Amino acid sequence: MRFARLGPIGQEVPVMLDGERVLDLRGITTDIDGSFLSSGGPARVAAALAAGALPELDGADALRIGAPIARPSAVYCIGMNYAAHAAESGSAPPENLVMFMKSPNTIVGPDDDLVIPRGSSKTDWEVELAVVIGRSTSALASKSESRAQIAGFAVANDLSEREWQLEISGGQWSKGKSAPGFCPLGPWLVTPDEVDADDVGLRSRVNDEPRQDSRTVDLIFGIDRIVWELSRRLTLEPGDLILTGTPEGVGLSGRFPYLSAGDVVDIEIDGLGHQRQRCVAA
Amino acid sequence: MRFARLGPIGQEVPVMLDGERVLDLRGITTDIDGSFLSSGGPARVAAALAAGALPELDGADALRIGAPIARPSAVYCIGMNYAAHAAESGSAPPENLVMFMKSPNTIVGPDDDLVIPRGSSKTDWEVELAVVIGRSTSALASKSESRAQIAGFAVANDLSEREWQLEISGGQWSKGKSAPGFCPLGPWLVTPDEVDADDVGLRSRVNDEPRQDSRTVDLIFGIDRIVWELSRRLTLEPGDLILTGTPEGVGLSGRFPYLSAGDVVDIEIDGLGHQRQRCVAA
Repeated sequence: MRFARLGPIGQEVPVMLDGERVLDLRGITTDIDGSFLSSGGPARVAAALAAGALPELDGADALRIGAPIARPSAVYCIGMNYAAHAAESGSAPPENLVMFMKSPNTIVGPDDDLVIPRGSSKTDWEVELAVVIGRSTSALASKSESRAQIAGFAVANDLSEREWQLEISGGQWSKGKSAPGFCPLGPWLVTPDEVDADDVGLRSRVNDEPRQDSRTVDLIFGIDRIVWELSRRLTLEPGDLILTGTPEGVGLSGRFPYLSAGDVVDIEIDGLGHQRQRCVAA
Repeated sequence: MRFARLGPIGQEVPVMLDGERVLDLRGITTDIDGSFLSSGGPARVAAALAAGALPELDGADALRIGAPIARPSAVYCIGMNYAAHAAESGSAPPENLVMFMKSPNTIVGPDDDLVIPRGSSKTDWEVELAVVIGRSTSALASKSESRAQIAGFAVANDLSEREWQLEISGGQWSKGKSAPGFCPLGPWLVTPDEVDADDVGLRSRVNDEPRQDSRTVDLIFGIDRIVWELSRRLTLEPGDLILTGTPEGVGLSGRFPYLSAGDVVDIEIDGLGHQRQRCVAA
């Protein structure tokens, strides 16, 4: 299944996409969030769909696309998780899983304007596969338990201000990862049965020129390993987001200019949809 | 004013402490949280107190003390913010503000048992002055605007697993900062008029032996500077927490053993109250 949230910021309507049909879920849930995911919400939607009990949402085409889940309790980000990206960042591939965090209030819709922060000259794109956690997850015994904790996958742009992240940070990256709007998410939350998330293509373009173009099979630490290790360090909550890392082809490489007002960023992952952001000044 | 939350986990009652009296705030608010703080809640409490309209809470002495604010949207932590602590950690004092994040689901009451995580041999204490944000805060023009954004102060123990934070982290600290229960907070949220937070003593002890004993006047980056700089990198939300850094005297120094089951940790800040945690195995 593909879930989405459509409408103005703060008033998004939870929907399910059935082919070209947009089905209104307000009879089943108030929102697509951790509570919905951990309480059997997707199964209730499947049953309602089978029973023909989901009405179409009128005027869906005209609505803004919001982030496909309401605000998580935390956004965990995996760093340097593609070898070629580590190299372009001047680092060796990591021996250990690298995890940092991003403020959850950075999450916005996939096509919302990308606001270049005041004082920023190094705003950079990062296409990433996002994992959405479906249940409270702690101390998993092995990687084989990871998949059952996952509600679905989505496209994320892990936007980064490189001066703030690297040059004036003392080495901790969160300072350059949490500016307002720095986590465009969506368009869809796609359930695991609909996508082979371990091997999908992910790409970014700026002004229609190619930037990133890789596959998740190149992840150094794969999805199951990430969920398993995080579960041993902390408690993942339903609706939490894990951004799994970005492949090579970002501005930090020095091969491309950073983003400026007027630029257009396209981000996509096969089967998970497409984002387009227009860059604007703060 | 001093606010607190008393009762079992998840059922805490919001109260105000008036000398020895514990006054029930349920007639004014459902909780002490960002919504209460940003909507004039403290002023409503002051008015109700002056009018004699706040009933005492029966049986308050027998209740567990919870964290004094309900879960924030984010916990921002300042690193290496006392020169002597930077030195004991093997680092020079930072030239730039160092910020990392801790999962908000780590927040527990000040006297709850401290669970040593499974597989941990380097669980470490860190007494810290916590700043509680009172209103949405973004892009402050100067440090002089910081103080008006602050709802109050509290005691925090920024517990850390040093192997996870430093040895198997690839350099990003959040992995060793977010284990369940790793942010004891409270006992009180104290409004700024009641404490000179820029110069208070803060101390920790383990099994009644002294560990940390410093004053916040030794902060490298002071409270106003921290709030101002964070506001230029991200949006602080009402109820968010900023842990301002820890002084020298932690286990990482090599001068003291790390925590083990059976140890008792005492943490206190003048005017903000006292925490006591008994260490237990996971």
